Amino acid sequence: MKSENKTILKERNLKLTIEYNGAKFFGWQKQNEKRTVQGDLEEAFFQLTKQVVEVEGSGRTDRGVHAMGQVATVKILSAIPTENFKVALNNLLAEDVRVKSVEEVDLDFHARFSAKKKTYKYVVDLNETASAINCDLVGHYPYKIDVKKIRKAKQMLVGKHNFKGFCSADTNVKNFEREIYKIDFSLKKNIAIFEVTGNGFLYNMVRILVGTMLDGGRGKITLDSIKKALETGERKYAGTTMPAGGLYLKCVEYNKQ
Amino acid sequence: MKSENKTILKERNLKLTIEYNGAKFFGWQKQNEKRTVQGDLEEAFFQLTKQVVEVEGSGRTDRGVHAMGQVATVKILSAIPTENFKVALNNLLAEDVRVKSVEEVDLDFHARFSAKKKTYKYVVDLNETASAINCDLVGHYPYKIDVKKIRKAKQMLVGKHNFKGFCSADTNVKNFEREIYKIDFSLKKNIAIFEVTGNGFLYNMVRILVGTMLDGGRGKITLDSIKKALETGERKYAGTTMPAGGLYLKCVEYNKQ
Repeated sequence: MKSENKTILKERNLKLTIEYNGAKFFGWQKQNEKRTVQGDLEEAFFQLTKQVVEVEGSGRTDRGVHAMGQVATVKILSAIPTENFKVALNNLLAEDVRVKSVEEVDLDFHARFSAKKKTYKYVVDLNETASAINCDLVGHYPYKIDVKKIRKAKQMLVGKHNFKGFCSADTNVKNFEREIYKIDFSLKKNIAIFEVTGNGFLYNMVRILVGTMLDGGRGKITLDSIKKALETGERKYAGTTMPAGGLYLKCVEYNKQ
Repeated sequence: MKSENKTILKERNLKLTIEYNGAKFFGWQKQNEKRTVQGDLEEAFFQLTKQVVEVEGSGRTDRGVHAMGQVATVKILSAIPTENFKVALNNLLAEDVRVKSVEEVDLDFHARFSAKKKTYKYVVDLNETASAINCDLVGHYPYKIDVKKIRKAKQMLVGKHNFKGFCSADTNVKNFEREIYKIDFSLKKNIAIFEVTGNGFLYNMVRILVGTMLDGGRGKITLDSIKKALETGERKYAGTTMPAGGLYLKCVEYNKQ
């Protein structure tokens, strides 16, 4: 014990890549008395290191939303070698959240503020009857869609726009300009997959973008209505908010560290 | 109302094909105060027809086990056209259980007693770190396996055998002879899929068969030990019982009705 006390621990900054199934979480962000991904991770760090740390994510994900590649940073004083954290944390965490990698990064690197690009994936089942097995993992949209119309809607949405018409109310936001770098769309055996990459996203933005493309593809709203949503910032011109279960934070990209 | 009372309803026998995600159910079989698939289906029938019916499955599935093709029969007095049941029941059921088809069959057809073959599917993730997203849908076996050994173990298990060594205790069973018609095995990107078709299965039998093939493939048990399990009926010679989440009742086959 005495020799341990003599070790002067330097502050380290750990970058975690995390996968989770959001079905049994009340979202990413810590809340009293509710199970959250951030809360579970901070508790695991506490059990492991006896330190109260803050696990700062690249952004919040809502209740029911999943992640293959959420990124978080943690400032910590600990002698545990970086390569040991992954297994040690996974042993403490429930199986619906897994630490995929842990690396040490510069102290000024921050999961949220250093992020340059994010990619979200949305999976939609277009069959008449949804899959029971995947009910928490896939959105359901039981309508015929015209792929040409989806592609046209997609082209209108890519680029730098005021996305006020494509978000749910969030009092903290004043600037609604975001840039969408690309939207990939694929359709195979009645399962549609959207991948949206941008420099940042407003509250519910991906779910509304996907709902807008689908409603456009089905002919429930016109391409002209989508144009109006972009021009006026009015929510009523955009499409449906798709359910949380089909949404995945796929990856967060940073400049080379 | 009066004219309805005059209609003499004949007893009909409905055959349902059902998909469910077992994660939030305490198995198939009705239990007091616990959510079960049979219980949910009977409640939906009651809401729809105001009749207390018995939904008889082809067999029980345990807590956490899924089905793509569970079959059940229901004897019912109702004027509702057969083709309307599917949508009407799905509107009343939660989204983790879906009726895929409803057809009228002969009165002497029974989901359990008329069944000739059943096929179960088991999905296993062989990666070191399991997927959080699929944690309720896939078993985890983080070991290197030798596919040749798996195939040898598989060949030993196919056929008519006394499977007493491959089941968990179940006081109702006296005859342990079952026939396995085939076992398909595939491995792609570290995800192994087993499909086992047989004339019937003992309690936990598929999960133990898969665990035995995996333990054989990993070298944890020898092929000789598997042979001993078949010969002696002693559970200790067979392999691990794999977890429920990777198991799916894929289909139940009947003679032409």
